[in-house]
Amino acid sequence: MQGGKLVMIDQRLIPERFQLVEFSLVEEVARAIKNMTVRGAPAIGAAAAYGMALAAINGQDLASSAHLLKAQRPTAFDLFFAVDHMLEMLSKGEEPVKAASDYADSIVGRCRRIGERGERLIAEGAKVMTHCNAGALATVDYGTALAPIRVAWRSGRRFFVYVSETRPRLQGMKLTAYELRNEGIPHSIIVDGASGHFMRQGVDLVIVGADRIAANGDFANKVGTFEKAVLAKELDVPFYVAAPLSTFDFALESGRGIVIEDRGEDEVTFMEGRRIAPEGSSALNPSFDMTPSKYVRGFITEAGILPPRDIGKIKGDRM
Amino acid sequence: MQGGKLVMIDQRLIPERFQLVEFSLVEEVARAIKNMTVRGAPAIGAAAAYGMALAAINGQDLASSAHLLKAQRPTAFDLFFAVDHMLEMLSKGEEPVKAASDYADSIVGRCRRIGERGERLIAEGAKVMTHCNAGALATVDYGTALAPIRVAWRSGRRFFVYVSETRPRLQGMKLTAYELRNEGIPHSIIVDGASGHFMRQGVDLVIVGADRIAANGDFANKVGTFEKAVLAKELDVPFYVAAPLSTFDFALESGRGIVIEDRGEDEVTFMEGRRIAPEGSSALNPSFDMTPSKYVRGFITEAGILPPRDIGKIKGDRM
Repeated sequence: MQGGKLVMIDQRLIPERFQLVEFSLVEEVARAIKNMTVRGAPAIGAAAAYGMALAAINGQDLASSAHLLKAQRPTAFDLFFAVDHMLEMLSKGEEPVKAASDYADSIVGRCRRIGERGERLIAEGAKVMTHCNAGALATVDYGTALAPIRVAWRSGRRFFVYVSETRPRLQGMKLTAYELRNEGIPHSIIVDGASGHFMRQGVDLVIVGADRIAANGDFANKVGTFEKAVLAKELDVPFYVAAPLSTFDFALESGRGIVIEDRGEDEVTFMEGRRIAPEGSSALNPSFDMTPSKYVRGFITEAGILPPRDIGKIKGDRM
Repeated sequence: MQGGKLVMIDQRLIPERFQLVEFSLVEEVARAIKNMTVRGAPAIGAAAAYGMALAAINGQDLASSAHLLKAQRPTAFDLFFAVDHMLEMLSKGEEPVKAASDYADSIVGRCRRIGERGERLIAEGAKVMTHCNAGALATVDYGTALAPIRVAWRSGRRFFVYVSETRPRLQGMKLTAYELRNEGIPHSIIVDGASGHFMRQGVDLVIVGADRIAANGDFANKVGTFEKAVLAKELDVPFYVAAPLSTFDFALESGRGIVIEDRGEDEVTFMEGRRIAPEGSSALNPSFDMTPSKYVRGFITEAGILPPRDIGKIKGDRM
């Protein structure tokens, strides 16, 4: 927050431009979450926390502000978690901006610890594959899936990252490659459909983020994640999910209850403002998919690396 | 051939424009194969046959013309098969244009028979998934993977097709969707990474084409095919490969011997003439992948539908 305004990076313009945007109303924050000015589960959570702070400062109804924010992205659990956390803090009389800032700081700390917990999975000379962007942009600072990569790199280990481009919005190509390049980490962009080809050539580790994790370890993440998980199992490549505890929806028994957000078909049929599909052909655009826990080797959290069956043990550690 | 010139559709411009291009030199045909003005294994074969006819008409050295054509796309077996077939016909004193035209006609007939053999696999109300373009554009007329779809539709059966867009060059979105739309067949474009999501929701059949099939049934096809095959097996969806016998490389024992063509990284990092990847990030661009035969339920050929173990039986039927 600067001068009563929330200041964020417009992630839609990366890597072409680095531009900051300012918001002073919860409605503006809601729109930024919907149109993906801010994206990535933990970052959405932090933005929503500030959105609730703006609502409180502006004297708006908190319940309807909470409802508005939650309606923007039905899959991301951090959004729900952050809004509910803020409702609780505000009802206790906590100062709004401090509560939001504490929330964001806590996420930053959690992501850093994810990196510290997970970095040992990346051996010298390893080939790592990731999908979409679960980096600093998604998560305020260290990232989730990129946190172990960042910490391993900074500790001096040298390795290579396959970045699957992540159609339709290309967050892998545009955001993850951008972050890795800025960090100097060797990487190559590949099309999503080439993941299996390269896994067979030899990948040591797949790390992805998550948007919502059910109590049994089933989880939703960017569409294409399920495919990588199945391929990893088939080709015996360890598959890890990196996420803070704020992404775990312990009330949800399994992945069957996860709502998958469908986004507009224009994200698929238009590119750079121009229609690329034939006129008269439509597209389906599920933004996420659900991966059953049986494909997951472990969840890398701030509380340690856990196999799916141990998720229940961390329920109390959340916040 | 018209007035001594080979006339073809420039497939790179579909669906934006339908434009014919003319060639009178084998070198021009070679370039058109390389830059994908003509693409799709059987169509590449037919174009190469006419390329050899042009070389013969122009009095050029046939062995070096054959070598030139074969060097353009290392993975597509139809290219090698057509060129060798033409060398044989020309050495027997066959009239060049007649030999090429007989070859192309034979491919058209074979693709039609693939449709007739395979159409029974598509039940009323079925959901079919395909990848890349193995349609009329790829194969002179009926197509390979699209042939059973076309024949089933024309026989009055009604069904739905998921078209995976096929990055980087989007032949699924740009060519397959275009053909299905022209035929009036209901379909939706999906991003490649959503194939698993929709297979789990219920797909009855996956049909793809092939660029080269080894004697044991391992085959190369557009990158992303291997992923669909693994997902289909995991989710119990029958997976079929439609191809004429001209795509079978009986001399090749297994898929390990298939050369996978790597194309330039600009196909991934540029879109519509504009760079979409961060400066300083590179891409890897294998054009094909190899799918082991264990994932294939059957090969739909002009000689019938065969499980991988029966491929040897059709060796004598080729041409």
